[in-house]
Amino acid sequence: MTTPDEEVLVARAYLSAVAEPPAPAVCGFVSAHGPVEAAARVVAGDVPRDVEDEVQARRGEVSGSALLESARRAGLRLLTPEHAGDWPTERFGCFEEATAIGLAGVAPPLALWTRGSRSLARALDRSCAIVGARAASGYGEHVSAEWAHGLVSAGVTVVSGAAYGIDGAAHRGALAARGSGTDEAHGVTVAFVASGADVDYPAGHARLLATVAERGLVLSEYPPATMPRKHRFLVRNRLIAGAGAGTVVVEAGARSGAGNTASTAESLGRPVMAAPGPVTSASSVGCHAMIRSGKAVLVTRPDDVLELINPMGSAPPEQGSPKRVTDEVGSYARRVHEALWDGASAEQLAVSTGLPPGKVRAVLPELEFAGLARRGDEGWSRVS
Amino acid sequence: MTTPDEEVLVARAYLSAVAEPPAPAVCGFVSAHGPVEAAARVVAGDVPRDVEDEVQARRGEVSGSALLESARRAGLRLLTPEHAGDWPTERFGCFEEATAIGLAGVAPPLALWTRGSRSLARALDRSCAIVGARAASGYGEHVSAEWAHGLVSAGVTVVSGAAYGIDGAAHRGALAARGSGTDEAHGVTVAFVASGADVDYPAGHARLLATVAERGLVLSEYPPATMPRKHRFLVRNRLIAGAGAGTVVVEAGARSGAGNTASTAESLGRPVMAAPGPVTSASSVGCHAMIRSGKAVLVTRPDDVLELINPMGSAPPEQGSPKRVTDEVGSYARRVHEALWDGASAEQLAVSTGLPPGKVRAVLPELEFAGLARRGDEGWSRVS
Repeated sequence: MTTPDEEVLVARAYLSAVAEPPAPAVCGFVSAHGPVEAAARVVAGDVPRDVEDEVQARRGEVSGSALLESARRAGLRLLTPEHAGDWPTERFGCFEEATAIGLAGVAPPLALWTRGSRSLARALDRSCAIVGARAASGYGEHVSAEWAHGLVSAGVTVVSGAAYGIDGAAHRGALAARGSGTDEAHGVTVAFVASGADVDYPAGHARLLATVAERGLVLSEYPPATMPRKHRFLVRNRLIAGAGAGTVVVEAGARSGAGNTASTAESLGRPVMAAPGPVTSASSVGCHAMIRSGKAVLVTRPDDVLELINPMGSAPPEQGSPKRVTDEVGSYARRVHEALWDGASAEQLAVSTGLPPGKVRAVLPELEFAGLARRGDEGWSRVS
Repeated sequence: MTTPDEEVLVARAYLSAVAEPPAPAVCGFVSAHGPVEAAARVVAGDVPRDVEDEVQARRGEVSGSALLESARRAGLRLLTPEHAGDWPTERFGCFEEATAIGLAGVAPPLALWTRGSRSLARALDRSCAIVGARAASGYGEHVSAEWAHGLVSAGVTVVSGAAYGIDGAAHRGALAARGSGTDEAHGVTVAFVASGADVDYPAGHARLLATVAERGLVLSEYPPATMPRKHRFLVRNRLIAGAGAGTVVVEAGARSGAGNTASTAESLGRPVMAAPGPVTSASSVGCHAMIRSGKAVLVTRPDDVLELINPMGSAPPEQGSPKRVTDEVGSYARRVHEALWDGASAEQLAVSTGLPPGKVRAVLPELEFAGLARRGDEGWSRVS
């Protein structure tokens, strides 16, 4: 892994704060000129009109070096695209593609303020987002935790947003599992938050965030100490959608942030999945609408998810139907078997079943061979 | 309505008993020669080989006039295709078409032994089948009863099979509703059973069957006193699938008769629908599999069903998302609204939101006009 020069970090820190994400014009400007030159020209006011619109308000209000300093005091590091090997280039490539075709709102992050020491690129090597309603039901939280546990046990990192409800249950389920791989970077959980990575939001998840940071990663494109705002949750959602190889919605009401994450995942070309639930539950209305409209695929277990995010992998087959004792014989034989009584003749069985006598005589030995009928002195009888 | 001659009834009674349904060869033979000639030739043994196979075992064992006599004593009448205006020609036409293209197992019924006085054709004018597992959950029975109630209230007859579980709940929910139409034939429920129409099977549903017969119809292609056999449930299922304009599966395990009814409905070209349920419930496994494979459409309420079985009708639109106070303004205005504090200036709001000051100055009057912001001597403030 490469650690970039301090001047790159200072430039990225400045750029990440000077424009409110998503900042497609600034992103394009940085791609064209590199972060150091781009930052200097933003400070100097030497930028095209679209970049100007994104940076005008805060140009003189932020300092990259001061932000880096306060981040380090708060135990955060700044992860940038220049951290070769640690930046998830493969996962986040979708943002460049989406921006290139003019998709609004899905500009890549300019940098990620990071709490935790793991490699993000390795953590996201195999990954899946699990998202859903804050106002989740007990059922939803159960499913979220169980599936996260199942995915992590299969070596897949669970990405979510650290909110109450489905998100929190996903992180907890993930933390309760142990990765099956020998690679420590697998089997972890990663939270993208809508505030600074050092802000404990929601406050009731302070301990959960600390544990996720310790064993996984807590990330944000917002500078340290940034407070969450409504629109920031929606903007943040694109990072969750981009970080997962697929997105699973466990519960979502009629109008939900999870639906927004699912839409973004869809426009990024990632598989979108949804869990069904009782039709009597308002928390499943959004999932059912997504399945019905074809936006999401119905999934009922972690293996369904693995199959969709990893089409090359071999998930175990769908649970087979239970076998019955008469499964091995044909349908005519089953009809005769069912009609059998002690001492029945082939002719009586023909009348009872309506089958031609010849057919009945043909299937009786088949039933005998299968151990389902016995020929006696008095006629045929049923064995099981 | 036309009541056919007694000789037609005697012939149809004989034909319905001499061959175990489905009897595609006998059906074709009857279509070609009419029931009276067909019955006479079956008795005489003057039939093609495929017909012979279907009638050989019982040719001399049954009597049409005796069956009619015992049926009348049991309070049953025989309904036949010759009952013009009462036979559901439109619904059952699918069987002729399916047989014509060589679909196995979906021959039409040769006659229907009927308990109840309503017109079957009028009852099935608007109809929907509701089927599902006998081992239903409380959730499944609740949904079945609620939806049946909703369909009957919308003037749709609910067709089912009178079994324990989902079927019974559907009949009960239907009986609890009153048809909204002025036409008495609407808003009823119809049961197709796998035994004789006079046999109370299951025994625990004797009273339910009596009520269905009184206010709707109980029908069977099996002669009076016929006992149910396993294969007869599967054979009977095609009549349920054919009698409904669509089929709704409320709950179904991995291996279920409801899945068989759904497959038949699909091959008859009728819409197949399934209710989702908790992924933790074995009773919903079959429904989820059908939705996932595209065999069934996910439905969550009676209006979804009405829309699919009656595409011309106007179901009320999907429940809309709840409106919010800021819905009427644009996304920039919402960001400014959220950031507003008492005495804020446009320039301060620009830094806080990251929006260009010009844009902030442009949206503030918009918020004021929408009643969401107020301009005071000290600056701007938030209204709601």
